[in-house]
Amino acid sequence: MSQSILIVNNVATNRIVLNVKLSAAQYTVHQAHSGAAALRVLRTNSIDMVLLDVDLPDMDGTRLCRNIRALPRSKNCLILAAMENEPLDKKKEIMAAGADDYLQKPVDDKILLARVRRLFRARAAETELQLRDGTAQALGFAEAAASFQGAAHISVVAGDRTARDDWRASLQEFSNHRLEGLSRCDALSQESPELAPDIFVISARDTEETFGLSLLTELRSNPNTRHSGIVVVLPYENHNLSAIALDMGADDLVYEGFDPAELSLRLNVLIDRKRQNDTLRQQVRTGLQAAVTDQLTGLFNRRYAMPHLKRIADRAKRTDQSFAVMILDLDHFKQVNDQYGHATGDKVLAEVAKRLRDNLRPFDMVARFGGEEFLIVMPDTPLHQAKQAAERIRKLIAKDPIEVPFQDSSIHVSTSIGVAVGSPPHRSTFDVQQLLNDADSALYDAKAEGRNQVTLARGAAA
Amino acid sequence: MSQSILIVNNVATNRIVLNVKLSAAQYTVHQAHSGAAALRVLRTNSIDMVLLDVDLPDMDGTRLCRNIRALPRSKNCLILAAMENEPLDKKKEIMAAGADDYLQKPVDDKILLARVRRLFRARAAETELQLRDGTAQALGFAEAAASFQGAAHISVVAGDRTARDDWRASLQEFSNHRLEGLSRCDALSQESPELAPDIFVISARDTEETFGLSLLTELRSNPNTRHSGIVVVLPYENHNLSAIALDMGADDLVYEGFDPAELSLRLNVLIDRKRQNDTLRQQVRTGLQAAVTDQLTGLFNRRYAMPHLKRIADRAKRTDQSFAVMILDLDHFKQVNDQYGHATGDKVLAEVAKRLRDNLRPFDMVARFGGEEFLIVMPDTPLHQAKQAAERIRKLIAKDPIEVPFQDSSIHVSTSIGVAVGSPPHRSTFDVQQLLNDADSALYDAKAEGRNQVTLARGAAA
Repeated sequence: MSQSILIVNNVATNRIVLNVKLSAAQYTVHQAHSGAAALRVLRTNSIDMVLLDVDLPDMDGTRLCRNIRALPRSKNCLILAAMENEPLDKKKEIMAAGADDYLQKPVDDKILLARVRRLFRARAAETELQLRDGTAQALGFAEAAASFQGAAHISVVAGDRTARDDWRASLQEFSNHRLEGLSRCDALSQESPELAPDIFVISARDTEETFGLSLLTELRSNPNTRHSGIVVVLPYENHNLSAIALDMGADDLVYEGFDPAELSLRLNVLIDRKRQNDTLRQQVRTGLQAAVTDQLTGLFNRRYAMPHLKRIADRAKRTDQSFAVMILDLDHFKQVNDQYGHATGDKVLAEVAKRLRDNLRPFDMVARFGGEEFLIVMPDTPLHQAKQAAERIRKLIAKDPIEVPFQDSSIHVSTSIGVAVGSPPHRSTFDVQQLLNDADSALYDAKAEGRNQVTLARGAAA
Repeated sequence: MSQSILIVNNVATNRIVLNVKLSAAQYTVHQAHSGAAALRVLRTNSIDMVLLDVDLPDMDGTRLCRNIRALPRSKNCLILAAMENEPLDKKKEIMAAGADDYLQKPVDDKILLARVRRLFRARAAETELQLRDGTAQALGFAEAAASFQGAAHISVVAGDRTARDDWRASLQEFSNHRLEGLSRCDALSQESPELAPDIFVISARDTEETFGLSLLTELRSNPNTRHSGIVVVLPYENHNLSAIALDMGADDLVYEGFDPAELSLRLNVLIDRKRQNDTLRQQVRTGLQAAVTDQLTGLFNRRYAMPHLKRIADRAKRTDQSFAVMILDLDHFKQVNDQYGHATGDKVLAEVAKRLRDNLRPFDMVARFGGEEFLIVMPDTPLHQAKQAAERIRKLIAKDPIEVPFQDSSIHVSTSIGVAVGSPPHRSTFDVQQLLNDADSALYDAKAEGRNQVTLARGAAA
């Protein structure tokens, strides 16, 4: 399926010329001569991009953009608007109404196609980052996207200090963002993606490599700056070079002598997009971490614990070391839930988790294994040491009652702990499932013998 | 922090020239005149890429690559090898030893820098996809990466049918992969990323747009082909154009009259990388899904359920519709676990989850809320309908005992269900926490009154 583009243009010959160009580039092309005709096409077809010449007989471009965004089928399609050199307010208006980019007429074919590709490329990258609506909200980041509205960080990069200072000063007049001038060297020496500028405005006059676009390509290949927005300032209007710059990853471009007010408008568009994408990337990272974390306690979950246990067992086999597996279960936890309610039960679980985490070594693993059941895996730990550790854990949980907000009394809890150890002379004890079964049986014995105690797996004579 | 490159070259003047070029591009440069010196630098410095001229006094390139890979500090650094026009076996050998790319001497500066950028760009994209070691394994995909070794799908794209057929046939001689000839139009009409070719080998002779590189840029901006590997075949050797092609996203390039055996070697490198990246992307998708899924039952988890419930409540408020919230708890589930063991208990939970999922409407949500507790949210559902649904669910779980493998008998389970309904006349009932509390209290009543029954929240007179 090729990508589909709707040409909206009042002039038949313009439509024909565009159709030829876009069809040659293998896009599926639809056409409309008016705003109403465009909306008809959008209601019945799946359209990826609207190429909108705003000079229409029946509707102004801003209104059409709003109408496009109001249709469920086209609310996410891309809109590239072409217009005469209108006052800046008109441009702002159409961008606010939902256009993704605009060009000034007459539009050169090469640049038009390169802009189309740039929009499609950016959209494809964004789409990959999108989570299902539910997932994003479930991970609690839906609000974060909208909330951050502070000043952005924009760097103006040019070898010529005067140009750099002039551009910076003229942009600052129209902007509340933090603007700084940078040398090419400093631009390429960012410490981290978080500290890198949101946007680079870079001069293409400085070097001859790759037609003066080497800074663009270097910023794009640097892990700290690859997600920054980049606006290229070309020394003079050159359609070939403009298309190359866009295809090499420039997000936008202007020519020397640009109107700083207009560039500021374009910068704001890029800043919004950059922030949205930063949020999406953050959501992905958070989501992946959430996949292996128990939400209530912050411990690892069972999904993480099982393969981790397997890795520790494999490593112990290789290095001929013992390791310990403990299953720990809160005693009479159902009574806590029944007597104080689930919310209090959850607080107890969280506090027990905290005590466990604070009292184990950094390389021990503690996971929530089930409702009130925890798994502890201790690498490089022989039986007597495992027994001591389990005893210590049992005591520290039984000793201090757990304070619970809004309850008059604090709650005493105790734990039963089953301990199994995989140790080198008994190779069979390295079987992970067997170890878990052994620890589980030991836990069962601890429960049967009155709870609040540590029991070693049978056969593991201490 | 700029990226760091180690130049390994036996000839001092070569090192000096390279140093000037790379420093101008703002890389941090280290130098070594021999294999031993290179390893010393790698042991004590953090190096991102080694530019290795294999003509060394003390060590052949293959051995040095192996040694580099054996050092913990440099096992992941990039290696770009430069060599005379050696037999293909030599090239294979050095790639097998761990080089990421190789170039034939003499190496043009522009091309060298573009190759360096390409390697850095690819590495940065890969690194972003990497999950923490533990996360990847926890999600169960560590093995998947290595296992898939079938034939790859390679498309040769050229307007000239004869060239296309010749290239395809000559490549097929050296390859077990599935090779096909495609027109430019077919290349751009892929149905999905999964069905698109792993690799495109494209002729840059066909069009004049962007120096014949328009197909490259169009494939890169198309969501279905943006992750495919792309090798550009340039009509003749041209250093400028080569650098542009690499900076526009070509993964590799050759010139017409290429050696098909050598191109096959290069294709295999790209295929491996493509597959690794496909796996990484799949891991990310799976990981995100896992974050909202209960592993045991495949239902949504609590993390997903809560904001989803909130969304349904908000929507009900807007549309003035009722919606139902049920909390369902298995009766005496602890006895199942105690009597038959946790494994059997898990099977029971999974079967209950299946029955719930199979017997609700597609837009109802069912989630595992806690150990043996499930949450059901039914949009657009008034009280009497919710009551009927809950009664139906209760019956279908109590009716047929659950078959459990390796147990002589099947297990009878029953459920208690608490039901609360948010309905328009009572705006306060749209408070999500209140609804959950009401359903929970109703569940408690159902338990108190003997279990295996449905109870409506107090105040919700039917």
